[in-house]
Parts: sequence; C-alpha cells; structure tokens
Amino acid sequence: MKSRIGVGIIGLGTVGSGTLGILLENSSIIAQKIGSRVEVLKIADLNPHAGQGISFDRSILTTDAREILDNPDIDIVVELIGGIHPAKDFILRAISNGKHVVTANKELIAKHGSEILDEAGKRGVDFYFEGSVGGGIPIILPLKTSLAANKISEVIGIVNGTTNYILTKMTNEGRDFAEVLAEAQDAGYAEKVDPSSDVEGLDARYKIAILAAIAFTSRVNLEDVYAEGITRISPKDIQYARELGYVIKLLAIAKQNHARMEIRVHPTLIPLGHPLASVNDVYNAIYVRGDFVHDVMFYGRGAGSLPTGSAVAGDIMEIARNINFGSTGRLPCTCFERREVVPMEEVVTKYYMRMLVADRPGVLASIAKVFGDNNVSIASMVQKDLRGDNAEIVMVTHKVVEANFRRAIASIGELAVVAEVSSWIRVED
Amino acid sequence: MKSRIGVGIIGLGTVGSGTLGILLENSSIIAQKIGSRVEVLKIADLNPHAGQGISFDRSILTTDAREILDNPDIDIVVELIGGIHPAKDFILRAISNGKHVVTANKELIAKHGSEILDEAGKRGVDFYFEGSVGGGIPIILPLKTSLAANKISEVIGIVNGTTNYILTKMTNEGRDFAEVLAEAQDAGYAEKVDPSSDVEGLDARYKIAILAAIAFTSRVNLEDVYAEGITRISPKDIQYARELGYVIKLLAIAKQNHARMEIRVHPTLIPLGHPLASVNDVYNAIYVRGDFVHDVMFYGRGAGSLPTGSAVAGDIMEIARNINFGSTGRLPCTCFERREVVPMEEVVTKYYMRMLVADRPGVLASIAKVFGDNNVSIASMVQKDLRGDNAEIVMVTHKVVEANFRRAIASIGELAVVAEVSSWIRVED
Repeated sequence: MKSRIGVGIIGLGTVGSGTLGILLENSSIIAQKIGSRVEVLKIADLNPHAGQGISFDRSILTTDAREILDNPDIDIVVELIGGIHPAKDFILRAISNGKHVVTANKELIAKHGSEILDEAGKRGVDFYFEGSVGGGIPIILPLKTSLAANKISEVIGIVNGTTNYILTKMTNEGRDFAEVLAEAQDAGYAEKVDPSSDVEGLDARYKIAILAAIAFTSRVNLEDVYAEGITRISPKDIQYARELGYVIKLLAIAKQNHARMEIRVHPTLIPLGHPLASVNDVYNAIYVRGDFVHDVMFYGRGAGSLPTGSAVAGDIMEIARNINFGSTGRLPCTCFERREVVPMEEVVTKYYMRMLVADRPGVLASIAKVFGDNNVSIASMVQKDLRGDNAEIVMVTHKVVEANFRRAIASIGELAVVAEVSSWIRVED
Repeated sequence: MKSRIGVGIIGLGTVGSGTLGILLENSSIIAQKIGSRVEVLKIADLNPHAGQGISFDRSILTTDAREILDNPDIDIVVELIGGIHPAKDFILRAISNGKHVVTANKELIAKHGSEILDEAGKRGVDFYFEGSVGGGIPIILPLKTSLAANKISEVIGIVNGTTNYILTKMTNEGRDFAEVLAEAQDAGYAEKVDPSSDVEGLDARYKIAILAAIAFTSRVNLEDVYAEGITRISPKDIQYARELGYVIKLLAIAKQNHARMEIRVHPTLIPLGHPLASVNDVYNAIYVRGDFVHDVMFYGRGAGSLPTGSAVAGDIMEIARNINFGSTGRLPCTCFERREVVPMEEVVTKYYMRMLVADRPGVLASIAKVFGDNNVSIASMVQKDLRGDNAEIVMVTHKVVEANFRRAIASIGELAVVAEVSSWIRVED
C-alpha cells in the first residue's frame, strides 16, 4: 500500500472543479476505502485564475502541463481539457512516462480510444474514462465488469442532456425548437455560441461510439456512425406521436446485427411504456440488453461538474486500488474485433411520417402504390387536419429497409397530389 | 495468467442453472475478456437429477459439497443453495481452504456478512455477492467502485419483484391483494406454500440491510431493520393515492440521518413523477443519492435464473481477474463504522390516512384537536365518500415524528365520532 497516491489534474474547468471538489471534500472516506490518501499535487490550467470557487492551496496551480506529465510524484494524470489537441499529446506523454490516466474526453476516446488503450496496454498502465459517457452514471465499468459475461445485443441511450431538456420542454409546453433552444441557452443548458454539437447529435455520436465498442468488443470507426439532430422536430410531430402512444427522444442506438453493428443517433419515436420514455429534462439513461441479464437501465445526471467529478473520482479510486495491489492493467481494452457498421441504407426500422396531400379521391391510392412499389408496408394511417385544400395525414410503416423507405418518400414528394412531405422520424419498439 | 480458473457450484436450482448456463454458453467471450478459461469442474446438489434442462457433462455432478470445498483444483466456490445452514458452514470452509466465494444468498449476507467478510479478509480471498440484491442489476459493485467517492445520503429501492408485480396489477386493474396474490402464485411469481417472505417485506429487508451497509460503510444489525409488507394495501388506497398524485410501492429505504441510519421497508406513497414510480411488474430499481453524483438509478430484472446468473458470472470474472493479477482482496469489506439505526418511533415522515367518521358538524374539529395535541399537522384533507351515516375522509400530514403520529391515530380511533381508521401509509417525497 502506498500511503499516498499522487494526482495531477489538467484542466480546472467545469469537470476539473467537480473532481477537485470531491477529492478534497471526501478525502477521508476515499482514503478509508482504498487505504491510501489521494492527494492532488498539481493542477494545470492556462487560466491562472481558474478554480476561484474552490478552497484549495493555489500554489499547486501551474500553466504548464509538463509539471504534471513529467512529475515523478504523480501516479495518475487526470485530463479534463477536452478536445483532441493538446489532450491527446498530453495523455500519450503521461502514458509513456508510466502514469495512469483518467479522462472524461468523449471526443478523444471516440476518435483515438483504441490507439491510446493500445499504448496504455503496452506500458501496463490504466486508462479509465467513466466520465466520458453519462456524467456520473456508472455505465462503462458495469459493462466491463458486472455485465461482462453477457453477449450484449443492444445499448440504447439518452446520452445528451441538452437535447433531452429541449425535447422535454417542447413536449410539455407544445413550443417550437428554436424558442426552447434560446431559453436553454439563457439557462446555461445549451452552448451560447454554437449549440450544434448537442442539437445535431454529435456529442451523442461520440458517446454511443464508445459504448458500442465496449458492448460489442469491437473497434468502432466514428466516421461510420450516423448522427441526425433534433432541429427539425416540430411540436406537431410530438403531439401526433403522443396520440399514437409514443414520445420523441434523441436516441443513441447501438445494436448487434448478426456479425455487424448498427450505431446511430437520431430522433426516435419510442412507446410511452418504454423505460426510456419517462427519462426527462437533463437526465440521461442508458438501456442495455444482454442475453442473460435481459434488460437493465442506468439513469442519472448525464453531465455537470459534480456528477462527472464523481465518475472521475471513482476511476481514480479504481486505479489507486490497482496501484496498491499491483494490478494495473487488469481491465484492458476489450476491442478484440473489427465489426463492420451497417450502412444507414441497410438499416431496417419503422417510420413515422407526416405529409400534406390534396383532399380528393384517389390520392391515397397513388401514395399507397408508391409505397407498395418500394416494398414499404403501412401499419396505420390517420387523417389529422385540413389545411385549405389539403389534408394532413400521418402514417406509421411496418419495418422496412431504410433505402426503400427513402426512395418511396422521394417519389411521393414528387407526386402532383402531394403538397409536402412535412417530416419523417424513425420508430423504435 | 492462469490458463484455467476452476469453479465449483453448490446448488443447481434456479440461480445455479442460470449461472451454469451463462458460463457454458458464453465461455469464449468470458475467456477472451479475462485471459483464462473459466471451467466448472464440479457441481454439488442433493438432487442427482438437478439441472435436467441444461446440456452439460453430468459426471461432474455430486451430492457431496466437500468434493468442491476441499478440491484443490477449484479456485472459486459458488454457493447457491440459499438459507443459513449449511450455506454458512460451506462458505467458511471454502474460505479457510483459501478459496474465493461468490454467492447470491441475501439472508446469509444480511445476517452474517460481516463475519464472513472478516474471515475472507484474514485469508486474503474474495467474497462477492452482486446477485444477492436486484438480480442482474449491477448495484453492489457500482456502489463499491464508480460511486465510491460519494457520501451516500439515500438508497431507495424497489427490490422485491413479487410485491411489485402484485401492486402493479392491483393498481392497473383495481383488484384486491388476495386475488392478485393467488394469481401471482399460479403464475409462479409468488411462492405457493408460504409467500410471506415476499409479501411481508422480509426479502426486501435483507436486501436493504446489505445495501445500507455498503452505502453507509457501516455494520447493520438486521434486527434493527423495520419491515412491513403489502398485505393490508387496498385498491381504494391505491386509487385515492393516485388522485393525490402518488403511486403506492413497497419501498426499501436507507437514509443517512446525521450519525445514524434509517433502514426500513414498508408500503409508501411516492409522487408519480419520481423515477421509481414507473418501475412496474417484476422489475426492480434502486435509486441512490450521493453528495456529488446527485441521483442515479439502476433498473432491471430483480430476480430469475438468467439475470441472477449474469450477476454471479460477473462476480466470477472479477475474481478471476484478481487471481490473474494477484490482486484478490482489492475490494475488501468497507463496514468501518457501527452506526445506530434510528428506531421507527423516531423516524420523521409524512403519512396518508383514510378513515370513516360520522357525517356531522364538529367531527373534524375533534379530530383536528387530537392531531394538534400530538404535534401532527395536516397538509390536506379530502372527503371522498359517504357510507351510510359515515363520511370517508383522506388526509395527508406534514412531516411528523412517527411516535406522535401513532399516538394521534390511536386516540382518534377511540373517538366516538370515528367509526374506523381504515388505513395509514407513509409518504416519501
């Protein structure tokens, strides 16, 4: 047992502050559980005024990350600056210096996780990243440990709090996307300058790529992961979905599909009774299906300073135990395989769609013909509304290959009797 | 790395079969992840015809557990016979023989967990029991690892599938307890001969005692844990609760209360919006609140052969990693403290109550006086029904000390104008 585990934190922003906070505030319970004091010896941040809200010895602050990376007293480097550069270089340097690394950097792991894990494996050090998905929710470690004996067939998550907050508000208050986004920006739930990483599904894309790699023991090429955001969701679709017994969520979906994987992020209709349907506001949840465990779900705050700090501190404690027991490397990379990702055109799912058509006899027959010609079969159809000479109709298909559905929708959009294909959204049952 | 980890299973009943099934069926994914084959070398069961549904080499079956406990090839003993005798002796013998132990035996852990963990600690072997709470749901390992840096203030669970199934049916179909219980017994969801362990809350009591010990790093004396079952819950209370915005669940509650702990099992009204409120049928869920992670919830199948087998196999893999890395003992007992359990009379909570009173002026004033005299303050009151000369009224109190509430209710029951105190149920917000 080392009496002291030395920690260096790079980046004292939101998550860095939460991490420092929990390590300081709960230091005695942490020490009691792992048998060593965890001591933050150095913190690097380019802003010399970082961490103003926290009471700590500011003499450990530096603007030079090398004081951590090359510091012989530091056992664990905690990278919390985000992004690829210079985070990746910092982490690789820490590893080559024999240090263990904890990060919450989803973009870096999604893009370069395998490479970093390989380096960590060669050097025999630990690289942990629980905080990169689902904030404080334990999901990565449970997948690697408690659920490890299962063949996982499905991981479906609400993994972006901003979009879940926006969709929840739109659902409860019947308001437009743009209006609710502006409010979320004011409230600090969405980025002011450029909210696209959240609302276009890119943040969720990183996260599901990470989860899929662990769940399916395969490398994942991020480029192959489809992402579609919530900017085109209208209150009308939300309302019609509800009438059909569904709620609209931005889902991050990973499914085993024979030897391949489906990995995709898009708005989705899910049945009101599904456990993910009642996950609201900024909460996240990850639903996992395995061959023996059946379905389990992990729910909690998917972001934020303190919850993510909790996850980072949990990782630090795991590594500290490994240091004390000489068992670093005991949870190595498990991406043994290189499964292909099914291209979106080949994905088979159901679709909800809404369109404006001329309100006269024969129109439905011509639409039905196009669907039939493309092997799309309709499960239900409702006429919702009259707008001038047009009728608004809503349809839900049976399962169909996406390429066929898209071809059908394109042809239908060109029919003279169709004024507008207003929207279409995938459905998960 | 050992090429082979030898496992012996004692008890080839429901959970034993699930465990054997997952170890056999997913043996290659398990071996790939831990770097060793996990091989079941012996299975002991008093019934020589056990495990008929599973395809395995029946020559490894024995009726004599000593062939496992004293077998030098066996690294991990899996105890799945349940109960105290002879399970406890088997486990202690395995430990003294230097073997690691996995069990799902909630009664044994709740009653003798500290003693067994002490022995395991002395001998440097692992004793894991993820399957004892929540079936396949990862909860014990996450509490000990991912969430370990938090001070936990609250663990609230729906940890008994039978009672949750019964309450869900009663809620959805407005039917009586006795009727639904009989149906659950026919369907195999409740014990035929004596369902009392489930419906009287005893099963949940074991589980919350285990969770409290881990969450609050304290020994728990099972005798101090209050348990009340669901046998007196009526469809009427469920309906009135719903009208007030609540659902009735059998909750297992553990709360930090200054230096002490509250640990109790009882039917409880929880708000419809609470994440536990939509946990239905045989599903379990455990809600945890920590100072940094805030609230997280773990949801899934709380029992059954395959889900519990998944948890047992996850434990076996964790121990196998420890064997391979020489790190057994790295997650020791963390019951450092001996916190007291708050006696029920001192618990402060809200109450729902239903009573029949004479329908005439002055009645409410006399009831209100009794409440006032006992420091019970009423948050809301509704008159529900007239039955002959009597009015049925429903009240919800503000927070009050249980002793005061019970004293008030006893006095009210003796008032001449009160025909009946029909029911009272605690409320959690």
